[in-house]
Amino acid sequence: LRATQAPVLCASAAAAAPAKPAFPPPAPPVGAPDTVPTSKRQRDMEALVCELQDSICSALEDVEGAPSRGGKRFQEDTWLRGSDGHGGGGRSRVLQGGRVFEKAGVNVSIVRGVLPAAAARQMRARGKDMTVRPGADGLPFYAVGVSLVLHPRNPKAPTAHANFRMFEVRDWDPVEGCERARWWYGGGSDLTPSFLDEDDARHFHSTLKAACDKHGSELYPEFKRWCDEYFNNTHRALPGDDGERRGIGGIFYDDFGDTVMSAKEAEERSEEGGGKAFDFVCDAGRAFLPAYIPVLVRHVDEPFTEEDKRWQQLRRGRYVEFNLVHDRGTKFGLHTPGSRIESILVSLPETARWEYQAEDPPKDSAAGRLLEALRRPREWA
Amino acid sequence: LRATQAPVLCASAAAAAPAKPAFPPPAPPVGAPDTVPTSKRQRDMEALVCELQDSICSALEDVEGAPSRGGKRFQEDTWLRGSDGHGGGGRSRVLQGGRVFEKAGVNVSIVRGVLPAAAARQMRARGKDMTVRPGADGLPFYAVGVSLVLHPRNPKAPTAHANFRMFEVRDWDPVEGCERARWWYGGGSDLTPSFLDEDDARHFHSTLKAACDKHGSELYPEFKRWCDEYFNNTHRALPGDDGERRGIGGIFYDDFGDTVMSAKEAEERSEEGGGKAFDFVCDAGRAFLPAYIPVLVRHVDEPFTEEDKRWQQLRRGRYVEFNLVHDRGTKFGLHTPGSRIESILVSLPETARWEYQAEDPPKDSAAGRLLEALRRPREWA
Repeated sequence: LRATQAPVLCASAAAAAPAKPAFPPPAPPVGAPDTVPTSKRQRDMEALVCELQDSICSALEDVEGAPSRGGKRFQEDTWLRGSDGHGGGGRSRVLQGGRVFEKAGVNVSIVRGVLPAAAARQMRARGKDMTVRPGADGLPFYAVGVSLVLHPRNPKAPTAHANFRMFEVRDWDPVEGCERARWWYGGGSDLTPSFLDEDDARHFHSTLKAACDKHGSELYPEFKRWCDEYFNNTHRALPGDDGERRGIGGIFYDDFGDTVMSAKEAEERSEEGGGKAFDFVCDAGRAFLPAYIPVLVRHVDEPFTEEDKRWQQLRRGRYVEFNLVHDRGTKFGLHTPGSRIESILVSLPETARWEYQAEDPPKDSAAGRLLEALRRPREWA
Repeated sequence: LRATQAPVLCASAAAAAPAKPAFPPPAPPVGAPDTVPTSKRQRDMEALVCELQDSICSALEDVEGAPSRGGKRFQEDTWLRGSDGHGGGGRSRVLQGGRVFEKAGVNVSIVRGVLPAAAARQMRARGKDMTVRPGADGLPFYAVGVSLVLHPRNPKAPTAHANFRMFEVRDWDPVEGCERARWWYGGGSDLTPSFLDEDDARHFHSTLKAACDKHGSELYPEFKRWCDEYFNNTHRALPGDDGERRGIGGIFYDDFGDTVMSAKEAEERSEEGGGKAFDFVCDAGRAFLPAYIPVLVRHVDEPFTEEDKRWQQLRRGRYVEFNLVHDRGTKFGLHTPGSRIESILVSLPETARWEYQAEDPPKDSAAGRLLEALRRPREWA
């Protein structure tokens, strides 16, 4: 595992990002008419997700500590989608049974193919207006992303999740009668503690807010609200609330930088890069470590009781519920033949617990205050 | 908890079943035009599900053992759907943290109301041809059932699930232009061991087969196949198989005894009872205890290792996956506002485990043979 890049937060980060080749070199789609052509926009995003995977794994291993102290390392698997490499592939890095982390997965995937229109629509939160080219089997698509879920062992240390992706399709413009190119970004970062620590919440949110604010003061409030709305166990709603959030939120965005043009124009402009939307994604992605690491480090050696551990396990049960019942990405993966199931379900905690009618913790405890914040999300930055 | 009835298996069982009143007496739907009228068919099924709840809880408490030896008892909650009792309610019985059972739930519910047509269609596996009466908000429905999930502590003792229900709706006959009554039965029993014991599998299946055979030799083969098809974690398919079954099966049936007639005729014949379909359901329901108890008792005090426990926990993770991702009843409940979430999710085990790329157990071990039987279901009776 080569982890070479420290997290950086600078306005020109996107421009400065080195155009490293992506790990299993995504085979150019030679001779396949139904593929999305390569572009600088794709190469830049591939380099970013690889950079994030490297820098995040490296920082987490530093917290995990030296193997002589019981610290574990990430184990890497690379996999190809399909046999010839033309469908792309992925690079999964997983650390389990560690000193700090029960389970941590940081996965990159870069895939190409043809999606049924219904499946492609599921990849978008809004603007479900894609049309298959007459005579075609589906929509040629391209997807690149890094996705991570980190479950620390200590119940006082929060679980974290982040995900940064770009999606691109070729659909059909029924008015102009020509092929159309369309791409957008999605992602975000969110925190799932078992106990409310207001300093943690403020630090995590304000770090993400600072990254967003550089690109427009409207972004953080919108993406914060979207995060609270999305990561919601609606089936756990009680009278008087609209559900129980999975955690204390962060940011979530989708259909970001949505761009539509004729395929011809997209080819002509293929060396322009991802522009301002990509600049934002760079900053949002690079804000994950400074948002999470201080929170993690603060709690990783904190004392805890058996009761704290039980409460963490019950909260992990809720994490499982959200991911299996509601999460769009997980559902998409579970119902798509040929998905790499191990990489999808690495998001699940090592262990989880369910009790019938478990009593709420006392309202004035850190566990009770957490529950209140999940039922009625608060502002933290 | 009054548990008075021993399981019986006799051809005239249905006729002989005492017409006990159901627990919270379901309020007659006075003055509400959009309800399904009461009938002998409903009262008989209500009495059956209460009888099964009593006999099953009583037998399980016998295995659990005396409180002086650490045996736990079932705790009962009754609940009403809506405030006036006209929507029906339920009686949940749950035993957790026991000597034998980590978690065991045996729940009865009897509910009335109006369902959106889409929701009503989800309650059926086939024959999705129901029509809402012009001007009505949805389909008046009635549902009665007993549902149970039993998770023993010892990894050598299998988890069991069973469910027996009747569903009834009033829809609209667009040809005749009149209200139409329709009812059917669904249910089954299935076994989920962590280790394959062929004697257990043969005993469980042949006991169910004997109950089915009394009503037609075609029933068991059809319902056994349906069970293998339904309880399938399709997202766990490997190259060369079509998924990983949740367990070694049993029987599963739906849309059974599907009956359609004009509402007027149904009212005239409301004292006829459920007929042959109900007779089958009585025998299938009463076969659960003789099918499961001997299997349970054989393993409940068997020695096991830490590694056996870990394997059980991984299998429980799969149980959670099936219930949250695939199970029609669970999904229906989670997405229906006003459901009693605690009663739905009592099916989840107390604890579960997920590891990234856990290795398969050796093929020649009881765990390995189980996995093989889940990937390629076998005939047991």
